Amino acid sequence: MLGVHGNNGAETHVLLIECADEKGLVHKITGALFRNNHNIVANAEFVDSATRKFFMRTEFSGALEKGKLLKELESILPKGSEIKIKIAEERKKRIVVFATKEHHCLGDLLLRNFSGDLNAEILAVISNRNDLKNLTEKFGVKYFFIGDEGKPTEKHEAEILSALKPLNPDFIVLAKYMKVFSGGFVSKYAGRVVNIHHSFLPAFAGANPYNQAFERGVKIIGATAHFITKNLDAGPIIVQGTIPVDHSYSSADLSSAGKEIERTVLAKALKLVFEDRVFVSGNKTVIFG
Amino acid sequence: MLGVHGNNGAETHVLLIECADEKGLVHKITGALFRNNHNIVANAEFVDSATRKFFMRTEFSGALEKGKLLKELESILPKGSEIKIKIAEERKKRIVVFATKEHHCLGDLLLRNFSGDLNAEILAVISNRNDLKNLTEKFGVKYFFIGDEGKPTEKHEAEILSALKPLNPDFIVLAKYMKVFSGGFVSKYAGRVVNIHHSFLPAFAGANPYNQAFERGVKIIGATAHFITKNLDAGPIIVQGTIPVDHSYSSADLSSAGKEIERTVLAKALKLVFEDRVFVSGNKTVIFG
Amino acid sequence: MLGVHGNNGAETHVLLIECADEKGLVHKITGALFRNNHNIVANAEFVDSATRKFFMRTEFSGALEKGKLLKELESILPKGSEIKIKIAEERKKRIVVFATKEHHCLGDLLLRNFSGDLNAEILAVISNRNDLKNLTEKFGVKYFFIGDEGKPTEKHEAEILSALKPLNPDFIVLAKYMKVFSGGFVSKYAGRVVNIHHSFLPAFAGANPYNQAFERGVKIIGATAHFITKNLDAGPIIVQGTIPVDHSYSSADLSSAGKEIERTVLAKALKLVFEDRVFVSGNKTVIFG
Amino acid sequence: MLGVHGNNGAETHVLLIECADEKGLVHKITGALFRNNHNIVANAEFVDSATRKFFMRTEFSGALEKGKLLKELESILPKGSEIKIKIAEERKKRIVVFATKEHHCLGDLLLRNFSGDLNAEILAVISNRNDLKNLTEKFGVKYFFIGDEGKPTEKHEAEILSALKPLNPDFIVLAKYMKVFSGGFVSKYAGRVVNIHHSFLPAFAGANPYNQAFERGVKIIGATAHFITKNLDAGPIIVQGTIPVDHSYSSADLSSAGKEIERTVLAKALKLVFEDRVFVSGNKTVIFG
Repeated sequence: MLGVHGNNGAETHVLLIECADEKGLVHKITGALFRNNHNIVANAEFVDSATRKFFMRTEFSGALEKGKLLKELESILPKGSEIKIKIAEERKKRIVVFATKEHHCLGDLLLRNFSGDLNAEILAVISNRNDLKNLTEKFGVKYFFIGDEGKPTEKHEAEILSALKPLNPDFIVLAKYMKVFSGGFVSKYAGRVVNIHHSFLPAFAGANPYNQAFERGVKIIGATAHFITKNLDAGPIIVQGTIPVDHSYSSADLSSAGKEIERTVLAKALKLVFEDRVFVSGNKTVIFG
Repeated sequence: MLGVHGNNGAETHVLLIECADEKGLVHKITGALFRNNHNIVANAEFVDSATRKFFMRTEFSGALEKGKLLKELESILPKGSEIKIKIAEERKKRIVVFATKEHHCLGDLLLRNFSGDLNAEILAVISNRNDLKNLTEKFGVKYFFIGDEGKPTEKHEAEILSALKPLNPDFIVLAKYMKVFSGGFVSKYAGRVVNIHHSFLPAFAGANPYNQAFERGVKIIGATAHFITKNLDAGPIIVQGTIPVDHSYSSADLSSAGKEIERTVLAKALKLVFEDRVFVSGNKTVIFG
Repeated sequence: MLGVHGNNGAETHVLLIECADEKGLVHKITGALFRNNHNIVANAEFVDSATRKFFMRTEFSGALEKGKLLKELESILPKGSEIKIKIAEERKKRIVVFATKEHHCLGDLLLRNFSGDLNAEILAVISNRNDLKNLTEKFGVKYFFIGDEGKPTEKHEAEILSALKPLNPDFIVLAKYMKVFSGGFVSKYAGRVVNIHHSFLPAFAGANPYNQAFERGVKIIGATAHFITKNLDAGPIIVQGTIPVDHSYSSADLSSAGKEIERTVLAKALKLVFEDRVFVSGNKTVIFG
Repeated sequence: MLGVHGNNGAETHVLLIECADEKGLVHKITGALFRNNHNIVANAEFVDSATRKFFMRTEFSGALEKGKLLKELESILPKGSEIKIKIAEERKKRIVVFATKEHHCLGDLLLRNFSGDLNAEILAVISNRNDLKNLTEKFGVKYFFIGDEGKPTEKHEAEILSALKPLNPDFIVLAKYMKVFSGGFVSKYAGRVVNIHHSFLPAFAGANPYNQAFERGVKIIGATAHFITKNLDAGPIIVQGTIPVDHSYSSADLSSAGKEIERTVLAKALKLVFEDRVFVSGNKTVIFG
């Protein structure tokens, strides 16, 4: 189920800090905000006890001199800290959605984009098929068909990259894009590509997992939204969800149920990502919901 | 969460029986099907012990002589039995959707209608506002604006009825239609109008319930899909669902969460209704899911 | 979450039939009940379209001549049909619970047994450790310690079998029993041993799965209740459930969450099994909930 | 479902602050911790935008001079601030449980108490009946029968207060205690009495709500855990949960389902309260989960 904050973050700045843990970090960081006359609206911290890394997300208000604040934070934080300041006016994300044939996730995103509750703007849809052109264009969104048939991966990805370049998206969303990206492609958009895929208890490897799930008589069907990494379907998990099924579900019924939970989980994950609530820490996410 | 059977019911006939309970009913009914050479694909019965009413839903296949089977069933069932046979070819429902300003339920239904997973055809959208015209027409669905401003209810409803007449819908869906129908209107479409509205634990009467929920600090927000009756918001319940919230939700956030659960619950309810799975028994529903 | 029917089934007889599908089965079976003057209280059927097997569960009332009814059913059903009649008075199940060290499932079962809402009687607890003796005996239930240290499996299982023999249980419940039974043992109690184990999305093989889940940053933890078969943890699934977790959960926290969902899922599965609602069909279950 | 952190908080101190909001609070507070050489393990803040109140919960480690830290915090925080420091060694709560006849909540608490996963010690059970004496004493917990029959409320409550006095509990848990406390009693334990009661969508006032829910054909049953105030059942909500039901549930079945969700919700609420995660703010709670 989608836990939703109506606030899409357009009224406050957000400070995101990721650094080695040490004593006094919160005190130092909030001091810099205080001296710059900012008011903290929301604040959350987490220390990963395994890696001793410190994560902090602060929503703050007040007239911002970004360069000055950034410099001040750099001077007081440990070396190698990652500091990001998202200015209120720039917090709406620019995204490109990839899809192939299935409409359930893309349609949901187009609708949420249309109604303005995604805190993002869909710049374009890119597909290796033409099936979803009609649906996409209904919503006045550009549709790039970039066919892959008989094309080497390298050439196909080069075409995609050249389409992406002028769009310059903050994030790429794989909304049932049925093609695996090369490691090279992934590294160009590291931490910025969100994928959705079905998940099962237990997991089923290989072709037609819904058929395997049917044979196994599973009682729940799941979906996982995650960032992609070179390791297919094994990147940092953002959101997972499940839906109950029973013996009366055919393999096709299980697949339908899977689509319902996929679109719910993807929308929830994107909401969190686009509100600057998700850190990637190694192969895990830290989420301030 | 939407429990979904992919089978939209287009391949089988459905027999729906509602009658006074007596010994041997299942035997008699299945006997009629057997003699007419039908094969039972799915079968479910329920006896309401309070009212002693018997409910049965049977999916069956095989060449159908509807009139003959109906007559045979009438001859063996108690007087006053309600017997409905839904022929495979006619099971796709013809519906009209009413909405006012909010797009979250209507958009979802238009999308499901477009992709064919609703087992229904949206004949038209009727609204007392113009806000949703653009969204509706994107999907090639007719939009009737029937304004109510400064119009007596009687006149407004007469206009609606005359728009509905040629459409002759099986069901009317109130997808956030913010106007109460008169008892007269309701009785013309008894058991055929599905409404969605927010629900809370505890319930809040009066204006701005989300504000009341906020003041009360609720931890879950709910939605109820039900048939409308003369008694506003008190008709037979089809589906209910909830979504978790917490202290960080503003009144507007609670309302956003409410929209998410409303559209999920409405879609689930319509799926059940359009697959001929829902009986109305007094002020309750009997659902063979 | 535990969906609970308060009716533990003590007032009605239950007929369970499993056979090859053919036309007219429901008619024939209900005819036999009708001729024997029984009233059908609840009825459910299912045909597995893959195997063409027919399953039927009927709750019925009225003075019963079990042998006569059984003979009549045998004469009208296909050869090889499995027909079981559970007499009202005998529907309370006699069970033996196995556990090792963890108390969360055993404690819950002892409590439900004590309060009479399990539709079962725990005849004894058998354990390869002494940790749970105190808890078990609080509830006046016999505790058999059957140590396995330095004992060959064959000898250990022989001791267990000889403890089980006089108890003659209908079902064995493995409530976190941390020892794998041999194929020989399993076949002696085929379809009568229910196990609970943790489950993950994705699944983690090998030792310390909670640590693996922690490393992977999962967002839900699951549990699966199933019948055991020779194939470890791969038997027919009865119930599955999940619980949400987040980045702030340590490996130990994940394990705690896992215990919560394990005891909920096990209790729900046993409720279904003990109410004669669960058929095993190959490697799947058919459940009339 | 119970979201569980295994950490019962025994290793860290906790600082709880509630005060009027002003700029720089987090900076000032963390400064005091820094100067006293404490390390922050977990930190969470919230500002209630309606009341401009600031809430902060900090888990910290390091040798503690409680008096010194408290004085320092008092000197830098706004007047009227509520500052609580829970020393690691004292964080295990001392509680008294009240119950009347129903065992489902009490049994669950006794079991969790026995296994040490409640972060609390049940000092005694107090009841106006004798029904639960046997169950309570199984776990070696004292049972005070304080009958109310034919006794004026004033006298009954005086007896309870005199039983409570030497126990000096941190919290009182009403685990299905079927008697309403007077305003006078409530004010003596303000913010320290947790109650559990059933909840419905829609709500049903008056006697036998499960029967009303049955008549209304509800599809979910809920439970609410809350602090009690003078206003019966309207105090600040801690946790709410629901469980699905359907038309086949009798009124007694609905009541059984209600018991399942009641005990789950109560356990979850107590876990949060006993880990010092719950603030009461007016008629709402702020929970750092």
